[in-house]
Amino acid sequence: MAKFVYLFKEGRADMKALLGGKGANLAEMTNIGLPVPPGMTITTEACTEYYRLDRKLPEGVMAEVQRNLTVIEEQAGKKFGDLSNPLLVSVRSGAMFSMPGMMDTILNLGLNEATVQSVAKNTNNLRFAYDAYRRFIQMFSDVVLEIPKYEFEDILHNQKDKQGVKYDQELSPESLRKIIDEYKKLVLSRTGNPFPENPLEQLEMSIEAVFRSWNNDRAIIYRNLNKIDHDLGTAVNIQSMVFGNMGNDSGTGVAFTRNPSTGENVLYGEFLTNAQGEDVVAGIRTPRPIAQLQEEMPEVYNEFVRIARLLESHYKNMQDIEFTIERGRLYILQTRNGKRTAQASVRVAFELAQEGLITKEQAILLVDPGQLDQLLHRQIDSSIEVSVLAKGLPASPGAASGQVVFDADEAERLGKTGKKVLLVRTETTPDDIHGIVAAQGILTSRGGMTSHAAVVARGMGKPCVCGCEAIRIDYVKEEFTIGATVIKKGELVSIDGATGRVIQGQVPMKDPEISAEYTTLLQWADEIKRLAVRANADTPEDAKKAREFGATGIGLVRTEHMFMGQDRLPFVQKMILAETLEMRQEALAHLLPMQEGDFYGILQVMEGFPVTIRLLDPPLHEFLPSVEELLVETTELRITARDAALLEEKLQLLKKVRSLHEFNPMLGHRGCRLGITFPEVYEMQMQAIFNATARLTKEGCKVLPEVEIPLTIDVNEMKFFKKKIDAIAESTMKAFAIRFHYSVGSMIEMPRACVMAGELAEVCDFLSFGTNDLTQTTFGFSRDDAEGKFLPHYLESKILKENPFIAIDRKGVGALMEMAVERGRKIKPAIEIGICGEHGGEPSSVAFCHKIGLNYVSCSPYRVPIARLAAAQAAISEGEIIGTR
Amino acid sequence: MAKFVYLFKEGRADMKALLGGKGANLAEMTNIGLPVPPGMTITTEACTEYYRLDRKLPEGVMAEVQRNLTVIEEQAGKKFGDLSNPLLVSVRSGAMFSMPGMMDTILNLGLNEATVQSVAKNTNNLRFAYDAYRRFIQMFSDVVLEIPKYEFEDILHNQKDKQGVKYDQELSPESLRKIIDEYKKLVLSRTGNPFPENPLEQLEMSIEAVFRSWNNDRAIIYRNLNKIDHDLGTAVNIQSMVFGNMGNDSGTGVAFTRNPSTGENVLYGEFLTNAQGEDVVAGIRTPRPIAQLQEEMPEVYNEFVRIARLLESHYKNMQDIEFTIERGRLYILQTRNGKRTAQASVRVAFELAQEGLITKEQAILLVDPGQLDQLLHRQIDSSIEVSVLAKGLPASPGAASGQVVFDADEAERLGKTGKKVLLVRTETTPDDIHGIVAAQGILTSRGGMTSHAAVVARGMGKPCVCGCEAIRIDYVKEEFTIGATVIKKGELVSIDGATGRVIQGQVPMKDPEISAEYTTLLQWADEIKRLAVRANADTPEDAKKAREFGATGIGLVRTEHMFMGQDRLPFVQKMILAETLEMRQEALAHLLPMQEGDFYGILQVMEGFPVTIRLLDPPLHEFLPSVEELLVETTELRITARDAALLEEKLQLLKKVRSLHEFNPMLGHRGCRLGITFPEVYEMQMQAIFNATARLTKEGCKVLPEVEIPLTIDVNEMKFFKKKIDAIAESTMKAFAIRFHYSVGSMIEMPRACVMAGELAEVCDFLSFGTNDLTQTTFGFSRDDAEGKFLPHYLESKILKENPFIAIDRKGVGALMEMAVERGRKIKPAIEIGICGEHGGEPSSVAFCHKIGLNYVSCSPYRVPIARLAAAQAAISEGEIIGTR
Repeated sequence: MAKFVYLFKEGRADMKALLGGKGANLAEMTNIGLPVPPGMTITTEACTEYYRLDRKLPEGVMAEVQRNLTVIEEQAGKKFGDLSNPLLVSVRSGAMFSMPGMMDTILNLGLNEATVQSVAKNTNNLRFAYDAYRRFIQMFSDVVLEIPKYEFEDILHNQKDKQGVKYDQELSPESLRKIIDEYKKLVLSRTGNPFPENPLEQLEMSIEAVFRSWNNDRAIIYRNLNKIDHDLGTAVNIQSMVFGNMGNDSGTGVAFTRNPSTGENVLYGEFLTNAQGEDVVAGIRTPRPIAQLQEEMPEVYNEFVRIARLLESHYKNMQDIEFTIERGRLYILQTRNGKRTAQASVRVAFELAQEGLITKEQAILLVDPGQLDQLLHRQIDSSIEVSVLAKGLPASPGAASGQVVFDADEAERLGKTGKKVLLVRTETTPDDIHGIVAAQGILTSRGGMTSHAAVVARGMGKPCVCGCEAIRIDYVKEEFTIGATVIKKGELVSIDGATGRVIQGQVPMKDPEISAEYTTLLQWADEIKRLAVRANADTPEDAKKAREFGATGIGLVRTEHMFMGQDRLPFVQKMILAETLEMRQEALAHLLPMQEGDFYGILQVMEGFPVTIRLLDPPLHEFLPSVEELLVETTELRITARDAALLEEKLQLLKKVRSLHEFNPMLGHRGCRLGITFPEVYEMQMQAIFNATARLTKEGCKVLPEVEIPLTIDVNEMKFFKKKIDAIAESTMKAFAIRFHYSVGSMIEMPRACVMAGELAEVCDFLSFGTNDLTQTTFGFSRDDAEGKFLPHYLESKILKENPFIAIDRKGVGALMEMAVERGRKIKPAIEIGICGEHGGEPSSVAFCHKIGLNYVSCSPYRVPIARLAAAQAAISEGEIIGTR
Repeated sequence: MAKFVYLFKEGRADMKALLGGKGANLAEMTNIGLPVPPGMTITTEACTEYYRLDRKLPEGVMAEVQRNLTVIEEQAGKKFGDLSNPLLVSVRSGAMFSMPGMMDTILNLGLNEATVQSVAKNTNNLRFAYDAYRRFIQMFSDVVLEIPKYEFEDILHNQKDKQGVKYDQELSPESLRKIIDEYKKLVLSRTGNPFPENPLEQLEMSIEAVFRSWNNDRAIIYRNLNKIDHDLGTAVNIQSMVFGNMGNDSGTGVAFTRNPSTGENVLYGEFLTNAQGEDVVAGIRTPRPIAQLQEEMPEVYNEFVRIARLLESHYKNMQDIEFTIERGRLYILQTRNGKRTAQASVRVAFELAQEGLITKEQAILLVDPGQLDQLLHRQIDSSIEVSVLAKGLPASPGAASGQVVFDADEAERLGKTGKKVLLVRTETTPDDIHGIVAAQGILTSRGGMTSHAAVVARGMGKPCVCGCEAIRIDYVKEEFTIGATVIKKGELVSIDGATGRVIQGQVPMKDPEISAEYTTLLQWADEIKRLAVRANADTPEDAKKAREFGATGIGLVRTEHMFMGQDRLPFVQKMILAETLEMRQEALAHLLPMQEGDFYGILQVMEGFPVTIRLLDPPLHEFLPSVEELLVETTELRITARDAALLEEKLQLLKKVRSLHEFNPMLGHRGCRLGITFPEVYEMQMQAIFNATARLTKEGCKVLPEVEIPLTIDVNEMKFFKKKIDAIAESTMKAFAIRFHYSVGSMIEMPRACVMAGELAEVCDFLSFGTNDLTQTTFGFSRDDAEGKFLPHYLESKILKENPFIAIDRKGVGALMEMAVERGRKIKPAIEIGICGEHGGEPSSVAFCHKIGLNYVSCSPYRVPIARLAAAQAAISEGEIIGTR
């Protein structure tokens, strides 16, 4: 016959399948020598057997339970049902996989009319004993007898009303006694039987109830959602209760092994003497700092310090410990890895390694890369209550406060006078760039995570909240409304770009702090990681920031951002509107020196590191006014008949804009398709890159430009451009009488490019995944449309587990990426392959990029530290790195 | 030493690599016993050897040439350089792969001052002899001596001017003599040497020139473009010239073995006595029908008839033969498969098989499936000259004439009075459906091959020309302009939907004729093909047509087309604008019986055959007015302040339309994403399908509905819908107290669906490729945008060899399809996989679908015959079918 019951000390951490997660954990704690209240676990096999027997407890289970109970009684120095020192137990379910809320816990099992009096005597607290009894009856009735909870709550409320009290703890022992009597009457009337007095009967009924709960509706739904096998069954944990309210030599408390806010290596927590956990929660008495326990109960304190150390060195992490002291004896009820701030996370990891408790690799694994973001941007002081007006999309992290302005020119003007402004627009366009530069942050009512405002703000590391549909902007009145609230121009508003919150008024903020621990930890990460981490940067300033954050290259320079500057836009528009090649070339001739200057600046900053420069990517109409704008203008002009000449001019422009109109611009005339139909634009950019390269080379600066062709779908495109690039590079080298290095590559953004990666590799020195567009086309999801309309439904209903624009969709997009890497490397094993864009700074995506063997990831400068840490974690988790103390 | 020279009779058809295509062909003709003028071929090996020796003729080549020349002289009864009967030869290049225009031919080689007189005497035509000499000098000088052609043309023109004549053939012998003298002077001054008189020297120089031409610029570019190996080299063909102008027992002509217009089995062609081929081309004398040759030269005629039969049975195809008669002796100069009309093509193939010359399989391979289209639509009579105003996209084949109208209502009104109208719109919308039904054809100035007008017209088999950007429509003036031409409402215009031509006035048309041969040939195809051919149909009428054309199922019912009807649109709009679930359900309740009726009709027509019904696919805003329309209306109303209430209403509508606006509708809230966010719409459609199924089943009609979910990207979507479908089917069966069959499947239109096909197969009974959207997303090409903007550049510059929206892109999209088939079949080997949409009716795509193992293709009814034939050809080409006489 199988063994159905294990004492905690008989179990092991690796017996989760048999003992459940909780049971295995209790066994682990017991075995490392912690003073855990003794107990036993009934196995999951007993549960499956219970169902095999059509819901009957297998023979022998209760006998085993009783045998083990004797051991527990001995250890606890109490006896089940004993009148002088009764053993009370808790009964909890615990499956292999955590299933929160599957079944409620039953506490204080073993109480009856007799034992309750003993508890009252031992704790010298009748009120406590009755309250415990009342709670036990209520829990047992709910879970085991299946009498609805509210019927008990009704009785409780009635009694409180009668007594004129508000809180449970204000009830007198007499009132509680009345409640117990009414509870028992209710049980009798509902079940036809009196409430069970026999502790063993209580226990057997509870065990069966736990097994039954495995197949309640909540549990089945939970398992379906989380794909947990319905046949696993649950274990049952029976553990002796301990009481912190048995006098002044008893108590209860919670403590972290280190300060969870700063990470400082001191015990951090609080305790109450002669109290149970509920008392702390109820807030009637104020707990005292853990340090004072040393004076009060020095032996217990020293024991606790010893255990805290023991736990840290066992779990190799800062612990959050719940404990109870019963008559001078310390019990550990629970320990888990403690939640901590980003700052504490870094410091704890660093110091644990310094102390020799963990390896550098383990230290790196201790920090959540996503948290690092907090350290790099200003934050709203979380200790302060704020009035949240609305929530938009968290488009660019960091917090900002400023006077509301609705116009980019005004933002720039006020900014120059030293005012802090917040630019509020329906959407932003390239025309607003100077306003964005001048503003503290940007708030828009439309557009998604890849809208103009979002992309530009992230690039600048500037806070931005996008697509906040609750706000209605009235440009004429110069105000916006949120429901009934009206915010006028000049009023102060704050935004939190990490959460999407829009907050009325100015809010206190914390500046980012970069600690020495942080710097060292990231150095360790750099030593360990295999992926290089580059940054996306469009200006020398961005590039400087990227280097500060530890980027070892630029993975994406978006040249179009340079086209959006106020000094360039007129020429860009001229180029687009040009009717002849000559007119276009004239406009381009103006842009050439500007672009050359841009590239010169970035390449210079990145001396010694590769810089991937992507040629013009967006559709041309992005540089012109919108059809809508022009339609309204021309209709006005037509009806008012004010200015015939202006109308004609606007109509001409409308015609051009219309001719550039696209049904699906994302899949339209953009990327290298522009370079094929208007080769002179790309030629200008190539020339600008090589002029800058030649000048810097002459000046003794070692630069490594990588010319990237966006949106390629066929090797013939690459051949077309490669020929031009080589020719222009060659002629530039001749003109400058110098040689320089450069490479040429393809941006892999379309599924076809993944399929054709082998052929592309023949011509390319590098491939770079643009996973945003690749996700859009692989799914057929336009990000701007999906995130506002149907993607939330997909996530809520779990059709998709994760937003594929945040974490790489490994099954779909990831499979195409793997195919591309495999095909590319087959043709050219040494080809350099990277990823640029949003996913490049997201930890699970970085891990995936590591797994499929990319050479680098590239992300916005502010996410470089996150990527460095995530890359190191990926390398460690892969088991490539052997930990060293 | 290698053998460098082969007489024609020494070669074989399979020696293309050695003798080149032309040489092998001449050998073949010689060996089957045709009277081919004798000649020899210098091998491609001699050419590669020539380059190996750094452009020197290998030793022995000229000796071999001379030896073979003796044999040729004997056969021809002439001698090279002979003064009484000189042998003249042609020299031509001929590589393994045809390279048109690589090198010009040299004719009449062997002429010099002496032999030209002999030719004059023998032909009794000094003018002819001098003209031949003049031409020879010019060709030789161009090709061999590399003196620019125009310098000779200048001399010729000067002489014509001097003589006051317009055409070459008006020049007198004296003038030609002068030209020859000037040509020779030119050669002397350019080369420093006199024009070579020695025929053998002429020959050797020509051979070297042919070898040199292998590496001229034109040839290199052509080989690069067509991926032909640069090392193959070219052969040289030297063939004796024959003359049809040596008296009345000589002549020349061209004949088809059957009538190329009707296919009738009679010789069809013409001849001229005492003439050369040039005379026919020059058009001075009128050639006579080939039948008259029987009276004139009965023996030659009988010989020609014998040869025609011989050629047909050898090449197993109708031949187009060039011949010359020299002094009563027939020579065959060239034979090739004759070009023919669609009608002839079918008849010739059928009759060749009936005559036992070819197998049924060979007959099927003889017909170009693409041509069949011509037989099914009215055609513009090609014998008539038409005035083409402009060209648009050939969106739906067939020709139509009618009075121009600009409004759908007017089209319907006039149509009811029996008028033939042509509906001209910028674009069409669902609101125009009744006008499209009433019109003979549709012409639009915007929109691509998948625009509303194009899709609807193809579905109806109605001619349509789309995206004709040259026309400017003025709805107010009720006219359109093309350049300076103005077409007013009511004027007659014709369109040719097969070519995109827009033609002024009414044009004579031919009705389609379905012959018995056609029907039989397609029956043969059905016996042979492995792919089933279904049709796309949205109405019972379409379905009837589909069956007439031989479809064995409906592969795609687009349910949204039913939403566009005038009687449904108001309810559809109500459903979309509904603010509450109740309002939406009320609107849907109106639509349910209508949809049920639609499905009832189609399923009934298709008794016994599967019908795939796709649930709602397009984005909802397609059923509402456009933002642009509303913007103009509201701006007008605002400024004129005419009607405040109407303005408010329009503003509300604008708000809703705006909220539905999408940046990239193709990748937006459509397909099953609608079914997930508004499940009640899909539920109504499911109910309508099963109500119709239940009613028909009860009536004893065997129906096979297949419910198709569009735009799936994940198996969880399918699980979500499958559950609903099964539940509704089950409850309907209960309600009708009957059982019926149905299946559930997924439309594979997104790259991710291809990757996930294995998981999808777990839940699906069938998968159906939507290759139009799959092509759009795999390439990242929005078809509507690409075809007007950059795709033409891609095709012209050969970056893409073919338009991927016309023929499946095998390397990219095809690779994803193969992956999907493989993954789907691995999980569920019996899963049914098909394709619907444009590609399903395109022959090379059908062949690809056969190759990757699909079960069926589905296309518009009019393309069903094409698909049937193409499917049979694919099966035959695969070698599965063994031909039987």
